[in-house]
Amino acid sequence: MQQRRDASAPLGVFDSGLGGLTVARALRHALPNESIIYLGDTARVPYGTRSAETVIRYARGCARLLVERGVKGLVIACNTVSAVAVELLRAELDLPVLGVVEPGARTAVRALSELVATERPARIGVLGTVGTVASGAYPRAVAQLSTRFECVAQAAPLLVPLVEEGWLDGQVPRLVIDRYLEPLIAAEVSVIVLGCTHYPLLAPLIAERAAALAGRGVPIVDSAAATADAVRDWIAEERILPTDRAQRGDLELLVTDRPESFRAVASRFLGDEVAAVNVVDLKPG
Amino acid sequence: MQQRRDASAPLGVFDSGLGGLTVARALRHALPNESIIYLGDTARVPYGTRSAETVIRYARGCARLLVERGVKGLVIACNTVSAVAVELLRAELDLPVLGVVEPGARTAVRALSELVATERPARIGVLGTVGTVASGAYPRAVAQLSTRFECVAQAAPLLVPLVEEGWLDGQVPRLVIDRYLEPLIAAEVSVIVLGCTHYPLLAPLIAERAAALAGRGVPIVDSAAATADAVRDWIAEERILPTDRAQRGDLELLVTDRPESFRAVASRFLGDEVAAVNVVDLKPG
Repeated sequence: MQQRRDASAPLGVFDSGLGGLTVARALRHALPNESIIYLGDTARVPYGTRSAETVIRYARGCARLLVERGVKGLVIACNTVSAVAVELLRAELDLPVLGVVEPGARTAVRALSELVATERPARIGVLGTVGTVASGAYPRAVAQLSTRFECVAQAAPLLVPLVEEGWLDGQVPRLVIDRYLEPLIAAEVSVIVLGCTHYPLLAPLIAERAAALAGRGVPIVDSAAATADAVRDWIAEERILPTDRAQRGDLELLVTDRPESFRAVASRFLGDEVAAVNVVDLKPG
Repeated sequence: MQQRRDASAPLGVFDSGLGGLTVARALRHALPNESIIYLGDTARVPYGTRSAETVIRYARGCARLLVERGVKGLVIACNTVSAVAVELLRAELDLPVLGVVEPGARTAVRALSELVATERPARIGVLGTVGTVASGAYPRAVAQLSTRFECVAQAAPLLVPLVEEGWLDGQVPRLVIDRYLEPLIAAEVSVIVLGCTHYPLLAPLIAERAAALAGRGVPIVDSAAATADAVRDWIAEERILPTDRAQRGDLELLVTDRPESFRAVASRFLGDEVAAVNVVDLKPG
């Protein structure tokens, strides 16, 4: 049985790098009084091209550090980790663990249910890392929510390097995105889930290219807001909202490498509340 | 003082991933009787976008594993590690350590000396990772060989992900390469050094694009052959050639993640001598 959590303790959020900042931003918006410790494992990014065993090992290292910092719950702001390690971390850790796959799948199913009013089947397209696609986590999550919808998942391994390098516009990302979108558009998907927390930084271009290739607008689903909603529901249920509602929660940023370049992106992304970014060492998982 | 090495011991070769196979192939060609243990740190690739401190930590872990296996010398088949850690590993380890930067720089200076017969100054272009370029290792190595030549180095962070994903031809790598070559061509370099062992897999395209952009052929220098020559010279000097000259040396391949995908590339690259690829765990550096 889990212990009663300290309401004033921070939330722990982790990702392989800076992609999880999309989730951190949504959490800051949905839960402004919550304090957050964000950990980006920038010394080992990307996770999405690694084996499930290695991702699990790295995820354990990240989780352990945040647990030692006394967080009241863990938000896995990384689809690859959510896809292969969320059940395992839940079993191993004595605190709530929330991933991004299930909230993202639920948002897609809801969006599709609104779009496809009739009972005919329809397809959900997923862009994800090699690890996320190989895990089959999205088809499983969608199947648990609805039998009407089929999932078509496409691995998009070059998108994380593009985002990490800041190539968010122009001919190269456009061509790379086209190459990954083509099988989804050919499969006539009605909605596309960004199944990696890095991808929302490319969302405008992905939406533009999907519309151009499909000849019609294709709704793009980002799991960040859905995940923040899930975290808010859990906090309300557990009654562990911070007592001081007047105070803005703290934000602590930790990385395992290159704090300066992380800080630059985080500042652009989270606004002026980004102070120092500190480097931590992770024990081997 | 270094101990006398066992001539029959293998050479240890390491890289962040599969790029170092270009060096392993050159070593197999130049020194067919030498046994080689190759280690690719595929669980933490790429190194080139990480800080010098992190690269040093990872390099120590790789070197330690190979030393424990009893290698007679270490070949650092990675420019990023060679650029930031070769002196340090030499100081810390009781065995010879050879990098790829110095042999590559020497080949470039020699090629340029032949091209530019007069005494006028000329420029050497270098494509490398962020880490290699930031280290200034190539300008330093060239300056030690000649004062006639200036180095212009360009970081090309997306080339390693492209190679690791096998995108070696087509419009995307072409555009990415053009973007990285443009500053070098604008600086009127007379030769281009592939300052990362992954890049030779893109060499045909790099040569084609450099010629197209410059309106003339630009020689491309790959440090793999030069490094193999340096290793051969060292082995001859130390008189530690294996005694059994009739026998082809063994080749052992180790990785830290995804052995199957590594094996596929290694087979294509090294031919039918690739047997199993084994996974090893590295202690934290």
